Amino acid sequence: MIDLLIEKIQEKANPTVVGLDPRLSYVPEYIKNEVYEELGKTPAAAAEAFYRYNVALIDAIHEIVPAIKPQVAMYEQFGGAGIDAYIKTIKYAKEKGLVIIGDIKRGDISSTAEAYADGHIGRVDVEGEKFEIYHEDSITINPYLGYDSVHPFIKHCQEYNRGLFVLVKTSNPNSGQIQNLDVAGKMVYEIMGEMVAEWGQQVMGTKGYSQIGAVVGATYPEEATKLRKIMPNTYFLVPGYGAQGGTAEDLKGCFNQDGLGAIINSSRGIIAAHLKEENKMKFSEKEFALAARKAALAMKKDLQRVIG
Amino acid sequence: MIDLLIEKIQEKANPTVVGLDPRLSYVPEYIKNEVYEELGKTPAAAAEAFYRYNVALIDAIHEIVPAIKPQVAMYEQFGGAGIDAYIKTIKYAKEKGLVIIGDIKRGDISSTAEAYADGHIGRVDVEGEKFEIYHEDSITINPYLGYDSVHPFIKHCQEYNRGLFVLVKTSNPNSGQIQNLDVAGKMVYEIMGEMVAEWGQQVMGTKGYSQIGAVVGATYPEEATKLRKIMPNTYFLVPGYGAQGGTAEDLKGCFNQDGLGAIINSSRGIIAAHLKEENKMKFSEKEFALAARKAALAMKKDLQRVIG
Repeated sequence: MIDLLIEKIQEKANPTVVGLDPRLSYVPEYIKNEVYEELGKTPAAAAEAFYRYNVALIDAIHEIVPAIKPQVAMYEQFGGAGIDAYIKTIKYAKEKGLVIIGDIKRGDISSTAEAYADGHIGRVDVEGEKFEIYHEDSITINPYLGYDSVHPFIKHCQEYNRGLFVLVKTSNPNSGQIQNLDVAGKMVYEIMGEMVAEWGQQVMGTKGYSQIGAVVGATYPEEATKLRKIMPNTYFLVPGYGAQGGTAEDLKGCFNQDGLGAIINSSRGIIAAHLKEENKMKFSEKEFALAARKAALAMKKDLQRVIG
Repeated sequence: MIDLLIEKIQEKANPTVVGLDPRLSYVPEYIKNEVYEELGKTPAAAAEAFYRYNVALIDAIHEIVPAIKPQVAMYEQFGGAGIDAYIKTIKYAKEKGLVIIGDIKRGDISSTAEAYADGHIGRVDVEGEKFEIYHEDSITINPYLGYDSVHPFIKHCQEYNRGLFVLVKTSNPNSGQIQNLDVAGKMVYEIMGEMVAEWGQQVMGTKGYSQIGAVVGATYPEEATKLRKIMPNTYFLVPGYGAQGGTAEDLKGCFNQDGLGAIINSSRGIIAAHLKEENKMKFSEKEFALAARKAALAMKKDLQRVIG
């Protein structure tokens, strides 16, 4: 996975991942009316509206960005139909050549982690027949339970050439409550970073980076810079740029000298670009995907200032 | 939720929650053959087999135990059909008067946590109409991201009378890697415990316990005893009894003087009781639910030695 991700980043000269975190308020009326007519104003219709919205977005951005990161919560909230829309979105994006980072943040004891790993980045077994269910290339996971909760995912990375991004220092305001606790002069996130770097040595790709990456928030540039040194072979998945307040300037510490080492997420800033005040007179409702495309191009340019 | 849970625990005189973590290897052949005939050997059939297996188990145990804890990973691995089987299981168990603890261990930044909270313990909104999707009475959550990731769940506990169990000290072998880091003489799990106790004051029930409980593993009796003192008004959800190695003796420190304060989970030990060597000659395949019932009664007796 990590080799493929790096190839795609280089091919597009763009270290951006687009977060597909739809909300009904983002979806244009004409799409919603279409699905409500077919399915009523139901949770299943909401899920289908997300899928159609995603398809248009993917069509508009797949030549510009290397990867998407669907946030499973947005789909899961609508039950089984929501999960099916999540999976359909992933399959469609893969057909378009995009790398998939499933933002699922799972984490559980090992026997349970195995079930998550089978479904998301492996195969489930029904009477000896193997089925791929979620089709993600990589997923985010939560390490609060320690190594034995992560190990089943690592095994699947080896077996199926998949990847992980382990939460290390998250972008949200209160992330420091646990992550910045001081353990004899080292912060919890630094200890976590050391562990992730060590685990990553088991599953190195061919381009100097491990299949096991880390989530490191753009909103904490100082921490990111420290982590970059602790984890030289670890790819960073960086949320927090744009809507959450992180700027291109804040991202410098996330990259290595080679301009690699980080992929920057933007969700709202791209997928809801048509709702920005300054865009309302520029794009009609039906041009929402074009607005997203323009926003993705602007972000690419913004990032090139940093890594250029 | 916590008042209802305590009522049910007292009514049944039994602080047990049965973990509904099905595996295909647990499900009797006659159920599997039934669904394979209808749906083929598919992930959807596996999910339906889980549901039918659960229905028989719920019928057999609902008069003995107050609550069930379905582990969503086991269902989620089969995609949308799996999630639908999870939801159907919950609805059936609620009809039978059981309290539901959804073992989902979610945790994300606040805007995402809201979507999880809406779906699992609140309502989702489709054009002004509100839908309840998952029907859990309470869920487990992961606090590695800090308070702002927990707050949306707490708001929903207030609005919809729901509950949480926050991971504090988990039962697995490597849980200490993060949770037992020493922060100036206090362990991370103790700091977490203090935070959970404080958050819990916002949503107290009428029986001395908060809607916000904690996950505390039976496999760490020393830590549990410390946490009991740190969190006097916090209900403990205790995994690790039985298959994971925790004994009734280990549970003493989880309970308060009043015999309340903890609910003990058993999964395999009850739902796969028919597969135990000593049971193979006692129960036919069709009597798997009877074996579960007997195991639940034995567990009740075992726990009464501790709290009696």
